Amino acid sequence: MKKSILFLVLALTCIVLSAQELQNFQRRPVVSPEIANGKVTFRIQARDANQVRLYGSWMPSFTSAETLTKDSIGVWSITIDAPKPELYTYNFIVDGVSKNDDANIFMQRDGRRFLSILLIDGPQTANYREANKRGNLAFVWYDSPTIGTMRRMFVYTPYGYAASNQQYPVLYLLHGGGGDEDAWCNMGRACQILDNLIEQGKAVPMIVVMPNGNPGQQAAPTLLLPEKTFERGDPSFANLYIHSLVKDIVPYIEKHYRVRAEPNARAISGLSMGGGHTMAATNTYPGFFSYILPLSMGIQPNQDVDAAFQAIKKAGYKLYWVACGTEDFLWESAKNLDAALTRNGLEHTFYVTPGGHTWSNWRIYLNEFAPLLFK
Amino acid sequence: MKKSILFLVLALTCIVLSAQELQNFQRRPVVSPEIANGKVTFRIQARDANQVRLYGSWMPSFTSAETLTKDSIGVWSITIDAPKPELYTYNFIVDGVSKNDDANIFMQRDGRRFLSILLIDGPQTANYREANKRGNLAFVWYDSPTIGTMRRMFVYTPYGYAASNQQYPVLYLLHGGGGDEDAWCNMGRACQILDNLIEQGKAVPMIVVMPNGNPGQQAAPTLLLPEKTFERGDPSFANLYIHSLVKDIVPYIEKHYRVRAEPNARAISGLSMGGGHTMAATNTYPGFFSYILPLSMGIQPNQDVDAAFQAIKKAGYKLYWVACGTEDFLWESAKNLDAALTRNGLEHTFYVTPGGHTWSNWRIYLNEFAPLLFK
Repeated sequence: MKKSILFLVLALTCIVLSAQELQNFQRRPVVSPEIANGKVTFRIQARDANQVRLYGSWMPSFTSAETLTKDSIGVWSITIDAPKPELYTYNFIVDGVSKNDDANIFMQRDGRRFLSILLIDGPQTANYREANKRGNLAFVWYDSPTIGTMRRMFVYTPYGYAASNQQYPVLYLLHGGGGDEDAWCNMGRACQILDNLIEQGKAVPMIVVMPNGNPGQQAAPTLLLPEKTFERGDPSFANLYIHSLVKDIVPYIEKHYRVRAEPNARAISGLSMGGGHTMAATNTYPGFFSYILPLSMGIQPNQDVDAAFQAIKKAGYKLYWVACGTEDFLWESAKNLDAALTRNGLEHTFYVTPGGHTWSNWRIYLNEFAPLLFK
Repeated sequence: MKKSILFLVLALTCIVLSAQELQNFQRRPVVSPEIANGKVTFRIQARDANQVRLYGSWMPSFTSAETLTKDSIGVWSITIDAPKPELYTYNFIVDGVSKNDDANIFMQRDGRRFLSILLIDGPQTANYREANKRGNLAFVWYDSPTIGTMRRMFVYTPYGYAASNQQYPVLYLLHGGGGDEDAWCNMGRACQILDNLIEQGKAVPMIVVMPNGNPGQQAAPTLLLPEKTFERGDPSFANLYIHSLVKDIVPYIEKHYRVRAEPNARAISGLSMGGGHTMAATNTYPGFFSYILPLSMGIQPNQDVDAAFQAIKKAGYKLYWVACGTEDFLWESAKNLDAALTRNGLEHTFYVTPGGHTWSNWRIYLNEFAPLLFK
């Protein structure tokens, strides 16, 4: 009896393939991207196309897109030297229209765009792969009285959380403009980076909370929920989220998770707009977060932050860590922030890297700063 | 100071758009799909393409794909009568190459394929939209000694779970061939259906556990983890998963969640291969699950199930619910199952619908059977 079911199950696994899938199998299977011996080959089946090009985020600009060559059965391909280890995105351009790589299941969403991923392995990207011991990720709906809706956040609990009685510290990790609660997981590889750093003993086990920083959204736009538009002049726009973070999100986490509910166990970091949120939250609520880490963000030259920074100094903090790339369009503003912290006598780190306003840098920063937290 | 940050944040939200995004904004924004007055319009920008076609899952076959018309600025479009309310998938075919709708952020993954979604609202699809009160979804890693790896499952906890002290019943919901732990959420709208049924008071609040039914996989292939290949003749292939379900997964859930750890609070359902798993698990462990619901699956005419079914009858159960579409290629096997249950004197429901071996039917079945559980 069991054998019959076994065979039926196996048969079905084949039969449930659609006609199109069968057709695809009958063709030569297209492998893409194929990484071997320092080369990467990209392939796409496009018998009737006139031109196929490839654009990858390792190229300096869209004008660098490279042209593929078609073989006798309609498979276009190109082999390039592998770019340096990094997590890249790419797409084909078929007769002028961008298209993901159907042979590559590894995709990411950047705002409203889906892009294929090329991951070139190396020391810098080792922590972007799955660790052996993996924490859990939950999509959590919470009530936000401050904003007036149910909203969604992603909550990472480290490996061992469920089996432990330990109380954990919490990193509040904020996305940038155009992003949502999914951005740090999807593009930032936050789960993989934390899993690896914790497994290696470099970071202490911590909970990571990734809220949605767009107060008009209940959740990522993939859910098609109605969105509220805020007027540009509405002063509540930026402040709403800051207040909801401190009054709605942190209390929710400290009530429903085994956490240490104290400033020394709260870190806040964010990139770009999320770096602005990080500073706004810590300026508005000095002493609430002991670890303050704005990334790729800064202040205007004449911005009056002295009172706020003095309040932070008075309240006390454990780490103020500013990171920016020298090619970032906010590099000057980050230098202004560094100078204002120095002027106000706030001990801090100014972590300067090459590169610009990119996820490459934000992954590097998370990998760098997570080991500094809660020690 | 706060106003400065506010303006900086607003400015950044604009500035962080890439060059390509700006270029897209300068074009006429492409809206697709646009649903209005019983019509659906699909649009795609493809200035240099020679031919653009549309294939949607509402069409009888790929040969029904319709041709779009190009306007003077290179936007191709087509307006069709809205198909009957349902959740459909579709893609464009640009010069012979399939492509998702870039203007539509609503996507699903079916195995290794990503497809754009068209959701036509109506009574039947009302529960596929987000409810007002939403449960949480967690990606949970558990140790599977039976299979020998860490594996991932999705766990849905209903609205109110975190704030309650209640003990919940559990539905183990299994995917089919080519699927993984993401399939019921992604294609099956399981979270939305449960949220809506619970909010409407039609279903009792329950936990839903969606494991990965491919014992060679640790998790969905999107994670790029190494997979173990089982030989077709290896008798452990199907049994491994059944045993791991009962010995690894159920104990994990009953240890780490507030559940009623008893047969009357355990339901098991699955589609296609998952229907086979449902029967294999309940035949192998009679009395362990009180609610048994194989979908779009059955048995061979001569299959010897009598001893197993007698054991189930003897052990006792609350519901045996078989569902199949009359156009399903397994319709005959489902009728065999119905007959074998009758022959063995097992009270059961044979829920017969139109349609075939499709997610349309599996969503309808979940919507139909969830209200029958744990009452």
